[in-house]
Amino acid sequence: MLWPLMNEFGLIDKYFARPERRSRTAGVALGVGDDCALLAPAPGMQLAVSSDMLVEGRHFLSTVDPARLGHKALAVNLSDLAACGAKPLGFTLALALPAIDEPWLAGFSRGLFALADAHGCELVGGDTTRGPLNICITVFGEVPAGTALLRSGARAGDDIWASGTLGDARIALEVFRGALTLPAEAFTLARARMEQPTPRVALGQALRGIASAAVDVSDGLVGDLGHILAASGVGATLDADAATQLIAICADGACAAGLFDVEARRSFALSGGDDYELAFTAPASARVAVEQAARHSVTPVARIGRIEAEPGLRVVDAGGEPLAQRFGGFDHFA
Amino acid sequence: MLWPLMNEFGLIDKYFARPERRSRTAGVALGVGDDCALLAPAPGMQLAVSSDMLVEGRHFLSTVDPARLGHKALAVNLSDLAACGAKPLGFTLALALPAIDEPWLAGFSRGLFALADAHGCELVGGDTTRGPLNICITVFGEVPAGTALLRSGARAGDDIWASGTLGDARIALEVFRGALTLPAEAFTLARARMEQPTPRVALGQALRGIASAAVDVSDGLVGDLGHILAASGVGATLDADAATQLIAICADGACAAGLFDVEARRSFALSGGDDYELAFTAPASARVAVEQAARHSVTPVARIGRIEAEPGLRVVDAGGEPLAQRFGGFDHFA
Repeated sequence: MLWPLMNEFGLIDKYFARPERRSRTAGVALGVGDDCALLAPAPGMQLAVSSDMLVEGRHFLSTVDPARLGHKALAVNLSDLAACGAKPLGFTLALALPAIDEPWLAGFSRGLFALADAHGCELVGGDTTRGPLNICITVFGEVPAGTALLRSGARAGDDIWASGTLGDARIALEVFRGALTLPAEAFTLARARMEQPTPRVALGQALRGIASAAVDVSDGLVGDLGHILAASGVGATLDADAATQLIAICADGACAAGLFDVEARRSFALSGGDDYELAFTAPASARVAVEQAARHSVTPVARIGRIEAEPGLRVVDAGGEPLAQRFGGFDHFA
Repeated sequence: MLWPLMNEFGLIDKYFARPERRSRTAGVALGVGDDCALLAPAPGMQLAVSSDMLVEGRHFLSTVDPARLGHKALAVNLSDLAACGAKPLGFTLALALPAIDEPWLAGFSRGLFALADAHGCELVGGDTTRGPLNICITVFGEVPAGTALLRSGARAGDDIWASGTLGDARIALEVFRGALTLPAEAFTLARARMEQPTPRVALGQALRGIASAAVDVSDGLVGDLGHILAASGVGATLDADAATQLIAICADGACAAGLFDVEARRSFALSGGDDYELAFTAPASARVAVEQAARHSVTPVARIGRIEAEPGLRVVDAGGEPLAQRFGGFDHFA
């Protein structure tokens, strides 16, 4: 059901219906306003689809700025499109709200649409109901048939790359939990990574035809890289110290002050979760092409390991020595 | 994110991953197992999309049989496809669960997949998390470009039709609420209408090129018909007594026993909610074609009113006399 069905709930219309925006997006034949939206991918295009559900206390704190939450709810979905190399087209939003809270709706919709507009991704429909706060977004993108980045294409000898920064979101979460303290500036940076992740949409599209496999890093690098290894039937060696270099607040100098030891840093970078970066693989012969794609999409990338025929994931330090430390994924059901 | 990402949560895989089913459906190029699913509508087809969110205590009772809930969660989405005349292709399922309850998961997935398989509608992805029980399904169907049934095509002089039965779901809800009592047999019938609605998928497709407008009756006939009137810029006269004839337990004789008076019957049929029938309009010249579409899809239909140029909805009795009784829609936010 779509919003105009909810005329009993005019406030939703007020914050989410944007009739002037209807049908502006190529590929959206009919947006909000009927029983279904109609998508019309261009000839030769496939439609990439992904759904994510965000629950209070599990994916976000009750105290989060609603504009940041609106951003994040769409960002985690766009990150899935990015991992497939798809161009965003539209999304549906289903929302359970405990009550009508106008400032909250205003902030949430503002953050949501700012990111949606930045990516030309149109709200095409949705549903609202009263219930414990729950945000369910399904996102649609298009990708030329046969060019989507999959998890299954990694081959022995390929480099392993990561985009952007890793670990900061988890570090911010640990501060909120009271398990860590950070200087104010470092906390602001880490908190922005946690609350306003940057989906790597342009990088994903630039990597089509270059990357052999890609995955969205949402549950921690080690866990998500494991999906590439499993789908591709390969193993890997991962340089923990190269990954640790990607902690933004460390690059900013905060780690040098001895805030946490090297084992903690490795744990945040390798299994922190909530990063919404891309982990991807590419043949060594494609290094220049990967770096061009990164420059073209204004997204930093770093080489952090290598795919090998031998099954399993071997985590080593910068000197190539195996680490005894164990790394798990972030479990949204724990 | 899709299920194989949730390897920390093997039980979800056990009940929802059906690897042997992958890619069986024409139009689904890649199902569960990557960051996105890939849909490939056939040339000339548009993709119809709709999302519905079901919350415990609002859309279903906590005591409902999980297999019936699995059926209903998909049925309410298929009903939106039906209202557009689209052929089901696939769906995503995002599920928040308070705890792992294996008998519940087994029942829910059994009911869900029984209906999905009956309609050739493939589970292509989803998300699971811990949280207050919440079921969010986004469904995809295909429809030849330009042939989707919309709400905006009704014209003065068109007949108004309704499919199937109306009001029984609301009657069952009133029994659960303790406001009504029914004989056991009538309650069983009404309860099945509430808990296992029949999406009118075949009828919707059969009405392409015949119906001028259509809407899914989910919030009550009067409210949902109002969406057709608003989108089409027309008014209507609705025969309350013709609609009341569509209460299944009345056709079955229960109403003759004087269980509720005519005003209560009209209220259930016209504004009960949770019917998941189609209300549609068609030119009077298309009556034979509508009846053929109904026979072809083995779905009863009944003529219950007429579209008029004069704005507004006039509810009359069988003799054409205006009713003083007011009819609202069912408000999921009240």
